[in-house]
Amino acid sequence: MPSKSIPNIVVGRLPIYLRALQRMAQEGRRVTSSQEIGERLGISAAQIRKDLSQFGEFGKQGTGYNIEYLSDQLQTILKVDRVWDVAVIGAGDIGSALARYNGLSDRGFRVRMVFDSDPEKVGNQLGEFTIRDAGGLVEELRAAKIKIVIISVPAAAAQVVADECVKAGVSAILNYAPISLNVPPEVRVQHIDPVTHLQHMTYYL
Amino acid sequence: MPSKSIPNIVVGRLPIYLRALQRMAQEGRRVTSSQEIGERLGISAAQIRKDLSQFGEFGKQGTGYNIEYLSDQLQTILKVDRVWDVAVIGAGDIGSALARYNGLSDRGFRVRMVFDSDPEKVGNQLGEFTIRDAGGLVEELRAAKIKIVIISVPAAAAQVVADECVKAGVSAILNYAPISLNVPPEVRVQHIDPVTHLQHMTYYL
Repeated sequence: MPSKSIPNIVVGRLPIYLRALQRMAQEGRRVTSSQEIGERLGISAAQIRKDLSQFGEFGKQGTGYNIEYLSDQLQTILKVDRVWDVAVIGAGDIGSALARYNGLSDRGFRVRMVFDSDPEKVGNQLGEFTIRDAGGLVEELRAAKIKIVIISVPAAAAQVVADECVKAGVSAILNYAPISLNVPPEVRVQHIDPVTHLQHMTYYL
Repeated sequence: MPSKSIPNIVVGRLPIYLRALQRMAQEGRRVTSSQEIGERLGISAAQIRKDLSQFGEFGKQGTGYNIEYLSDQLQTILKVDRVWDVAVIGAGDIGSALARYNGLSDRGFRVRMVFDSDPEKVGNQLGEFTIRDAGGLVEELRAAKIKIVIISVPAAAAQVVADECVKAGVSAILNYAPISLNVPPEVRVQHIDPVTHLQHMTYYL
């Protein structure tokens, strides 16, 4: 995989393409085109063709893309042709919502454990999970070989939690705390903060 | 404001800069530098200087940025020097979490109303809100002059809800449903889907 040469922003669009293709498959569709994907996503057909061409030849001129084939290929490229175990750290509103969310499992991820540091919450049941004591975070993540975590703790606690995850060998963090995390360069972080998205839009209002 | 000429991706970084500055202010800091902001965010100092220079002169060579002044300027540029009313549509786990979230109000947004279409939920209390019937969505959004909504309904319902919001005069949609929405070009949409973020990271694992 020539991952070195492919811009991060292109990689970031692949999950969007995959999601659109999987939705088309659910609708019973078999074939699509860069034009149609583009219309659904508000991205130009030329951009989609250019992005996909960086990873291989997925369609024939004039006949379009086979939806199932292209989905499979994108899943392989994104490494979600397998299921990744995920730990959720922080069983507040967002953490609880994620632990109960059933939209992860068919897209490559499965929540395996949920942690919180609040003694009132530790030991409680959250859907199928018993909330674990965040005091044992490093050991438990390491023992379960968890590589991906979702951090949904308050901003003031997030960096400490991230440091522990790194110590435990985690290599990807999805951070819901409204703070930028500092991690070593080999660890990936993505941030989800609704306010930054809202502020991005108000600029244009 | 020369908004036409400024790339969307640059605008998208301003909320991140603002968040970092506000955090520094909370820490009691008064002055910072592009180097320091860059270290916190994992962005180069040169990139930050280049981004900010598109909007004006905010610091002096050698003395750095006054944190409060730069925060104020960014708030003005992003139009969050005021408070925007927001409606949350869909009172499931995510919608409920957002309605209860107290991290919006000091960053430019205030949830004003919460809607759901489930008769079992309509009329129930959710924090300070009485859940409204989504059947009256268009009229109520219009009457309250709501310009910004958060859609947190299932994927299958999201496009219909978005169409109604557009009809009601909404100009910015933050969409948590895992589907790309089609809206007229004058309406802004941002998507939050944890799985696309996770898949972006697994590519590199």
